[in-house]
Amino acid sequence: MPHDDAYGEALRAYHETGESFEVVERDDGFVGPPGTPALYFSDPDEWGDHERTALERAEGRVLDVGCGAGRHALYLQERGHDVVGIDDSPGAVEVSSERGVDARQCDVADVRDLDAGTFDTVVMGGNNFGLVGTRTTAPRILGGLAAVTSADARILAETRDVHATDDPDHLAYHEFNRERGRLPGALRIRVRYKRHATLWFDYLMVSPEELREVIEPTVWELVDVVEADDGAQYYAELRKE
Amino acid sequence: MPHDDAYGEALRAYHETGESFEVVERDDGFVGPPGTPALYFSDPDEWGDHERTALERAEGRVLDVGCGAGRHALYLQERGHDVVGIDDSPGAVEVSSERGVDARQCDVADVRDLDAGTFDTVVMGGNNFGLVGTRTTAPRILGGLAAVTSADARILAETRDVHATDDPDHLAYHEFNRERGRLPGALRIRVRYKRHATLWFDYLMVSPEELREVIEPTVWELVDVVEADDGAQYYAELRKE
Repeated sequence: MPHDDAYGEALRAYHETGESFEVVERDDGFVGPPGTPALYFSDPDEWGDHERTALERAEGRVLDVGCGAGRHALYLQERGHDVVGIDDSPGAVEVSSERGVDARQCDVADVRDLDAGTFDTVVMGGNNFGLVGTRTTAPRILGGLAAVTSADARILAETRDVHATDDPDHLAYHEFNRERGRLPGALRIRVRYKRHATLWFDYLMVSPEELREVIEPTVWELVDVVEADDGAQYYAELRKE
Repeated sequence: MPHDDAYGEALRAYHETGESFEVVERDDGFVGPPGTPALYFSDPDEWGDHERTALERAEGRVLDVGCGAGRHALYLQERGHDVVGIDDSPGAVEVSSERGVDARQCDVADVRDLDAGTFDTVVMGGNNFGLVGTRTTAPRILGGLAAVTSADARILAETRDVHATDDPDHLAYHEFNRERGRLPGALRIRVRYKRHATLWFDYLMVSPEELREVIEPTVWELVDVVEADDGAQYYAELRKE
């Protein structure tokens, strides 16, 4: 395969032609109903109410983690915030830059490379709490986010309570994860688009209870939950203790 | 993965719920824009003109090779033909049987298990000429179809001229195939649906010139081509020499 930026290539194609797709492959062999990247380009009036409600809690200078095509960054910029987007995908950085985001290619694991103490809000929208990886890697990444944020900063992070399902494929995956010592929603996935495939990566989805457990070793605490209508999807608001 | 009938599972889900999908993975890592199995259930008025035109040439007792959800078999039954469908997929056999097809689970490679000399027409619709596999396996499979058909039988086989493309991914695959001694359109693919994946299988697509070369060692000859409007898709009519 030519290179590994399948996600960025799918975004780029959608940005340039309006046609694209994305296949997400899970490490138990599951492939889901394929989607288009349209969501990543969607306007705020197409979002769930909980998304806009949660983002109203943004204050000051914003770091958008995994900015993708920039939908959250653009929304917050329009509301007067100074926003920096980071994404590990060169294609995402290119697309979101073209759409007007101050986007930088940076893996969230390297977020300490940014200036210390300068952000007042971290946004991890579109399930991007998942970018903390696993229960094991989360403390270091959340520590990095603590380092680049101000003393009273908040994280607005979206995730999903994976237990709100009766899909046998998903329930079997949760059990597979438990057996290998992972949280049930500790996804290991890759994105495929045409001949492109990302490397396999960890993407964590947690219930509020699991989230509390994951952030326990960090300076962050869960102060509020903004639920979507489906009762599974939600934004967590984290503040420094 | 639970078992290998991904294609049949995708058909079954569509048959039962109207919702399904199918991801086709090629052995160079390419995954295409994913589709739904809706085509396999489509009515004749949704087909290309060349499909109905070609199937008008059916005579007598019909063998539908790779009958899938049975769209060709049902069409020909309604036009008065005695039709037997074969498919290697248990799910396809189940679905097409429920829809009224006399469907039997049989790999086309084992078609000699059927009664000799009893079919007057073989239909390989929906690109199912591809089920001959490769240039190497085609003569044995076409020999099997000769054995189960009458003296003046015909094969109505759909395929696609893969050279009618300027997609760089496809052109690179053709070159990859040439380098390993295969015809450019000698696809090696598997179908994935949720946790199901078929085994990798060969599925040949050929221009009329390549088709002549492939059938040259057999009793069959190409007597006519019924082209679709796109100039790439076509039905070949084969007759015994």
